[in-house]
Amino acid sequence: MYAIHANTIHNKWDSSLKPVISVKPGETITIDSREASDGQVVPSSTASDLLKLDFSIIHPLTGPIEIVGAEPGDALEIEFLNFQTKGWGWTGVLPGFGFLANEPYTTPIDLSGPALKIWKVENEATAKFGDLEIRIPSRPFPGVIGTGLATRGRFSTIPPRENGGNMDVKHLTKGAKLFLPVFVKGALLSLGDTHVAQGDGEVCGTAIEAPMEVTIKVSLHKNAGISQPIFETNSVNDSAFREYLAYPGIDPNLWEAAKKSIKGIISILSSFMTPVEAYMLASVAVDMKVSQVVDVPNWIVTAYLPKEIFPEDARSKISFLR
Amino acid sequence: MYAIHANTIHNKWDSSLKPVISVKPGETITIDSREASDGQVVPSSTASDLLKLDFSIIHPLTGPIEIVGAEPGDALEIEFLNFQTKGWGWTGVLPGFGFLANEPYTTPIDLSGPALKIWKVENEATAKFGDLEIRIPSRPFPGVIGTGLATRGRFSTIPPRENGGNMDVKHLTKGAKLFLPVFVKGALLSLGDTHVAQGDGEVCGTAIEAPMEVTIKVSLHKNAGISQPIFETNSVNDSAFREYLAYPGIDPNLWEAAKKSIKGIISILSSFMTPVEAYMLASVAVDMKVSQVVDVPNWIVTAYLPKEIFPEDARSKISFLR
Repeated sequence: MYAIHANTIHNKWDSSLKPVISVKPGETITIDSREASDGQVVPSSTASDLLKLDFSIIHPLTGPIEIVGAEPGDALEIEFLNFQTKGWGWTGVLPGFGFLANEPYTTPIDLSGPALKIWKVENEATAKFGDLEIRIPSRPFPGVIGTGLATRGRFSTIPPRENGGNMDVKHLTKGAKLFLPVFVKGALLSLGDTHVAQGDGEVCGTAIEAPMEVTIKVSLHKNAGISQPIFETNSVNDSAFREYLAYPGIDPNLWEAAKKSIKGIISILSSFMTPVEAYMLASVAVDMKVSQVVDVPNWIVTAYLPKEIFPEDARSKISFLR
Repeated sequence: MYAIHANTIHNKWDSSLKPVISVKPGETITIDSREASDGQVVPSSTASDLLKLDFSIIHPLTGPIEIVGAEPGDALEIEFLNFQTKGWGWTGVLPGFGFLANEPYTTPIDLSGPALKIWKVENEATAKFGDLEIRIPSRPFPGVIGTGLATRGRFSTIPPRENGGNMDVKHLTKGAKLFLPVFVKGALLSLGDTHVAQGDGEVCGTAIEAPMEVTIKVSLHKNAGISQPIFETNSVNDSAFREYLAYPGIDPNLWEAAKKSIKGIISILSSFMTPVEAYMLASVAVDMKVSQVVDVPNWIVTAYLPKEIFPEDARSKISFLR
């Protein structure tokens, strides 16, 4: 059983970094993770503070962790055992960043930000959107988790890659097993950018960003024959949700279809909150599925809004009819 | 309570068609639906029969149904009450059609077809893939359901549109409520292309295609203010599935990311069956989610393969490790 404090951080992928700890395969590690802004957003922050963000220090990753005996061609198996949140989290819209940044709207819907929500986080995350008290079940996962890259140099943490990295896949939560290829001796595993909850897509660019302790068990598969991340998960079907309102985005371009689906949900939610609040809520709670990619020439991406996040007496009012 | 036999079909959208029945809002209708090939595929068919398909008669739709009092600007609310399957279904790969038609592969993986599976359909659909007896829970829905188009003329049933049509959204199953805009007097509702089950994406171009009886209740919302399909559903979280194997497709193009995710699953399944069988299995059982669209420049679409479709003793062997 190992523990790594979040004072040992880096925020570029860099395989020349010295490991902060050396761990044998099969051992359990508790890793303290800062939130994505590295302390620039705190529970008392306001939206205008986001305009002062120093992007050069975002994504503080705890690590790298050396896995004893790991060599190129092997795979790490990372089992997510536990997540301990710390009472709060945040969701923000940073001007110029996000799926709908600078998106032309036919009606004057302003999604540009800055905008910020601070969440209270326990078994669920709670915050007010418009007049509605929203409750999102806590489903924590690391937005970023990856191994050291084969190529020497310092690489941005923003794009996900063959080493994993900033995948932002919401199902890498408790019970999941993530398999990552090893590219360098010792594997050099790091994680950070921890999220309390997220919708598929992370559309506004942030999830419920929060510091937390992550407990993982790391195993080693020699000469495993994988070239990119693969995972097993038991959290796809979320028993907290049953009733969904769904908006199909129909378009000959899959990217535009996805945009239409999210815009449809934002449009519906905007009767109950500001559009930028709706955008943030979509980012933390709305799922996106590729419904079909074969009905030439119009593909469909559908956005699913779970009704259970709303107060019980408000659910029947979340309507799209005039 | 109305019933419509499947001898009253059409296979183009055409708002000049005379309704086959006139139904008052609030009534229940049982609609008999042929399968998508209109009888060209039968339980004794073989793959080579697919080469003789006459595409001019596919998508026989039952209808159109006039909804009394429906006018342009209104919306139909269609509640799916029941689906009665008829013992069999089929899944096929038609040369030149499907998400991975003509896709270049680095290894010689042949997905071109023709290929055909005939399923036995009861509470679940069963068929053999390789040596494995596959069981897919029955989750029936109409691939095509739509209202008459505002524009006069005859229009292909293949692309989905503002009237719904060939949406192939798997969650339009029992319990779902679909809202469709009305463009012409009487609404002119038709449905067909019924599926026993489908994965998100319908990647090989067909689902488990099957004839069935569909019972719906149709309500009318006057002057509803919707311009495209929207639905409510309670079937997103499928309690039949818990354990998934998942493959993230990472690419700067969302379409390519989706392809990579499905190719990853096909590659894993191809240890247990032929690649074209894996392609068909992905089409009926693998879900696809848009994991993130904000981590510049690499987006992620993840494909999720439910392990419970495999025989219990085979599940632990479905591995991607060498």
